[in-house]
Amino acid sequence: MKDKATIKKMIEELKTLKTQDMYLNDFFHTWKESDDEIAAVFQVAEILRAMRENNISTKVFDSGLGISIFRDNSTRTRFSFASACNLLGLEVQDLDEKLSQIAHGETVRETANMISFMADVIGIRDDMYIGKGHTYMKTVASAVQEGYDDGVLEQRPTLVNLQCDIDHPTQSMADMLWVINHFGGVENLKGKKIAMTWAYSPSYGKPLSVPQGIIGLFTRFGMDVVLAHPEGYNVMPEIEDVAAENAKKSGGSYKRVNSMSEAFKDADIVYPKSWAPFAVMEERTKLVEEGKFEDLKDLEKRCLSNNAKFKDWTCTEDLMKTTKDGKALYMHCLPADITGVSCKEGEVEASVFDRYLVPLYKEASYKPYIIAAMIFLAKFQNPSAKLGDLLEDAKKRIK
Amino acid sequence: MKDKATIKKMIEELKTLKTQDMYLNDFFHTWKESDDEIAAVFQVAEILRAMRENNISTKVFDSGLGISIFRDNSTRTRFSFASACNLLGLEVQDLDEKLSQIAHGETVRETANMISFMADVIGIRDDMYIGKGHTYMKTVASAVQEGYDDGVLEQRPTLVNLQCDIDHPTQSMADMLWVINHFGGVENLKGKKIAMTWAYSPSYGKPLSVPQGIIGLFTRFGMDVVLAHPEGYNVMPEIEDVAAENAKKSGGSYKRVNSMSEAFKDADIVYPKSWAPFAVMEERTKLVEEGKFEDLKDLEKRCLSNNAKFKDWTCTEDLMKTTKDGKALYMHCLPADITGVSCKEGEVEASVFDRYLVPLYKEASYKPYIIAAMIFLAKFQNPSAKLGDLLEDAKKRIK
Amino acid sequence: MKDKATIKKMIEELKTLKTQDMYLNDFFHTWKESDDEIAAVFQVAEILRAMRENNISTKVFDSGLGISIFRDNSTRTRFSFASACNLLGLEVQDLDEKLSQIAHGETVRETANMISFMADVIGIRDDMYIGKGHTYMKTVASAVQEGYDDGVLEQRPTLVNLQCDIDHPTQSMADMLWVINHFGGVENLKGKKIAMTWAYSPSYGKPLSVPQGIIGLFTRFGMDVVLAHPEGYNVMPEIEDVAAENAKKSGGSYKRVNSMSEAFKDADIVYPKSWAPFAVMEERTKLVEEGKFEDLKDLEKRCLSNNAKFKDWTCTEDLMKTTKDGKALYMHCLPADITGVSCKEGEVEASVFDRYLVPLYKEASYKPYIIAAMIFLAKFQNPSAKLGDLLEDAKKRIK
Repeated sequence: MKDKATIKKMIEELKTLKTQDMYLNDFFHTWKESDDEIAAVFQVAEILRAMRENNISTKVFDSGLGISIFRDNSTRTRFSFASACNLLGLEVQDLDEKLSQIAHGETVRETANMISFMADVIGIRDDMYIGKGHTYMKTVASAVQEGYDDGVLEQRPTLVNLQCDIDHPTQSMADMLWVINHFGGVENLKGKKIAMTWAYSPSYGKPLSVPQGIIGLFTRFGMDVVLAHPEGYNVMPEIEDVAAENAKKSGGSYKRVNSMSEAFKDADIVYPKSWAPFAVMEERTKLVEEGKFEDLKDLEKRCLSNNAKFKDWTCTEDLMKTTKDGKALYMHCLPADITGVSCKEGEVEASVFDRYLVPLYKEASYKPYIIAAMIFLAKFQNPSAKLGDLLEDAKKRIK
Repeated sequence: MKDKATIKKMIEELKTLKTQDMYLNDFFHTWKESDDEIAAVFQVAEILRAMRENNISTKVFDSGLGISIFRDNSTRTRFSFASACNLLGLEVQDLDEKLSQIAHGETVRETANMISFMADVIGIRDDMYIGKGHTYMKTVASAVQEGYDDGVLEQRPTLVNLQCDIDHPTQSMADMLWVINHFGGVENLKGKKIAMTWAYSPSYGKPLSVPQGIIGLFTRFGMDVVLAHPEGYNVMPEIEDVAAENAKKSGGSYKRVNSMSEAFKDADIVYPKSWAPFAVMEERTKLVEEGKFEDLKDLEKRCLSNNAKFKDWTCTEDLMKTTKDGKALYMHCLPADITGVSCKEGEVEASVFDRYLVPLYKEASYKPYIIAAMIFLAKFQNPSAKLGDLLEDAKKRIK
Repeated sequence: MKDKATIKKMIEELKTLKTQDMYLNDFFHTWKESDDEIAAVFQVAEILRAMRENNISTKVFDSGLGISIFRDNSTRTRFSFASACNLLGLEVQDLDEKLSQIAHGETVRETANMISFMADVIGIRDDMYIGKGHTYMKTVASAVQEGYDDGVLEQRPTLVNLQCDIDHPTQSMADMLWVINHFGGVENLKGKKIAMTWAYSPSYGKPLSVPQGIIGLFTRFGMDVVLAHPEGYNVMPEIEDVAAENAKKSGGSYKRVNSMSEAFKDADIVYPKSWAPFAVMEERTKLVEEGKFEDLKDLEKRCLSNNAKFKDWTCTEDLMKTTKDGKALYMHCLPADITGVSCKEGEVEASVFDRYLVPLYKEASYKPYIIAAMIFLAKFQNPSAKLGDLLEDAKKRIK
């Protein structure tokens, strides 16, 4: 556990980072944020965590709402968002949108304002349809910005992307902060190899935003990032471009292969996970829009049968042995499809998964702090000063 | 934005209003409240808003629950109630009543007590059945009063009517506060004409409580209030009596016409909105009580086909031109049925609605503060003293 | 209402009780707790209630979550838990488990950790299946203990059993605290007779945990506890053993009879309530596990027809006359099946129930405080010191 002197030093370090543009701004995709901004999220997350461990209250809001909009089911992200809001003093109010997944623009604008009169932050998960989730979030963000500019809203609620069709920044950032801690510092990541690979799952249509989020973020740290998937399971080409460019800048590398074993070979980290092919996701969105539900069923059937050809894309003990010293860090966003446990054949062998339970849970434990840090940086113009005040006041979380 | 000196002055003004009878009392219908009490709600709402704009905490409850009971769907009223409770420090706990809409008296009494052990306020929406909503609220109110008298409850939770079959006071009060601000003061309302008119919507069975709330409240301010609707779409005669009497006292006027254009002529404000005829709503309630669901379907069919005769009752650009200087303030409780947007033919033309977006959102923005003011006045015997304390403490809402 | 001096004295008394083992521990069954621990829960509940009555804040958490998991419907327990959490400063976050009632072990462990990163307490209701509810709670408890030990969780969330298949401690403890207050002190309970008797209800499958909870707890206070039920409606034999042993230690008695009138004779307290036979509940669990839903329907049919033979097991005015001075205290956990009110023939005559409305509501009013006391004792190593601080600070609940 970090002591107060250490926390004070961490706050000093935060001062060196430029975070002005985060103030009253939204967090959509990690690649839209500068290196300083990414570093600031990690730093604030660590500081908030250290304060909580020292039983120091970080309740910066006396009242205020954190609105959550989950257009896809969620347990862990829901609890992470609720935890983050509670940690800062915001009360969560959930907007339950049972209705159309792809809502009308005008309605979105109206609803966004109607729920935001006392909202300080809005967290949205909308990851199901290509071209929709991010668009929806942008619509909400511009609606509340207009509402603020027009004097309708007294404050500008800022958005946190809790997973869209393109990126899952609270996941990838939590994953990265775990990796930084696991390897003993960001300076130790240069040259480390991570295998972000597709893996077989009996289900269909898992979002692309996790693999995209990982390759879009991990390439910024001088790592050797390998994306592996069977033919046809491509991710969005724009995000591969982002990854390639990141790698060039950071002195790392990015490449795509069609073999799981090639990806695993000497990897320091493996992240085997199912997703649906980009092309299929696009077709699916189109069919939903056109109301062609029979064709949708056909698509699903075709996909599942295609999927079934790649049951050997699974994280086995044998594959794990081929990684760096046979001891790569196994990662997953959870829940995983575990062979013989949650399904007959899945993404990972039970013995591998079981060996990594504690690391997996620790990986997940960073998400509430990452979300809280994103909120914090969007709501305070001088975050280090504010954190310094909290540390000095040292009001107890539990009295 | 009002500065602290202005807020102080507003608190001084509040002192001149008699609000004793509101203490530990419920808010059912605006016409049961004295002029001072109505004025006090507006004044407290404005003070709370001004404090929030100045980042001054108005959290008067350290703990305590605000119970919400929504017997009809709701997004904006739900969020308004949640915002109001949060602003004052109460946590919302929702009673989810999936069961019978028209519940048994004994059960209501028991449930009211069981949920109220730590409840400071109960907000209820029950607007679907004539003769039921208000009755239900009265039953809950008398149950918790008895519980308090009998020593079962340590505090008397007070009720806020979030819309019943008769009145929608949080809506009409928010609407009126918006109008007062829009026209630069309550003294400028005398002689202003408001057209509360029926408008066509493809749906059926919208509550009467909005038009009734408007004519029951706006007639108290010396305005010329005109209710317009097609033959047969009458509201409750008792409320028309209230409106007529109010108008006489306030030096305004109240009349009913059967023509939208007559109502719009030279109006300063127009409020075109669909509702179901009182007689139909009564019949509907009876059929539901008797379990005659086939007859209910017939009734709905008859109503919709009758409705369809009045598609020309819609707020067009041409009609707007006939209002005062062609610039009447367009009002709506939202969501509106917008022609060509949310339906084929509806209450208002899209271009009219779009021109009034910002005013409409501002209108809605008053509701959380109106609800908070109703709660505040019911829970503090000396509201101005309490507000004075808050202003002096000036604890920050966002630290 | 108790004054501050009295509260101070109550806190002094609390110091004499050994509560160390409750710290960071779970509350599963009353019979697992020592006499001191049981007494401490009552004492803390009374202190918290007295403080609230004196408008003294007992908010010991500045932030933190209280997780609720309701695997069976609930209104009053849900509100009691929410009230208790709110009273102490915790925000309730509900885990909505629409899925399988009998979940997979591995999943439970993972979910338990995923929702607990900022959880201080977890309240669980899982009372539907014999052999399942308590087992589930133990799994959750050991999962978060492991998570804490492994450094995954920064704090150890403690569990409160909000009703399992075996015990309903928050109910029986609230009931007992009501009885203690009603009879003017725990010292007056020696020799008092309580009839915990089965009563007819047209429904099927009510949990055994209420009668078991009552006989398992009330026998500790030197009372004469009589369990009465028709042949075949036995409760779990282990719990009868607990009751018999308790009675021996406390100088009271425990016996089982097959006649309601024998139980009621000269009773000081009567608690007539329907439950399903243990053997049937076991068979039911097995059928659900095996997916034999046709057999399940058969079982229900058989049970209901067997049930119908015992319609004369109902709490009538005539039976009440046979109790001590004709004035036994009538108790129920609510809601009751009231003859001619909530059903044609039920557990109790309407006139009896109505005469005891206020006592019944008072009985229920203790539950939020019992839950709060259980949480308090699990989270503070030195509860009397903490309560002393709160009393001295005397921060107002309502400002």
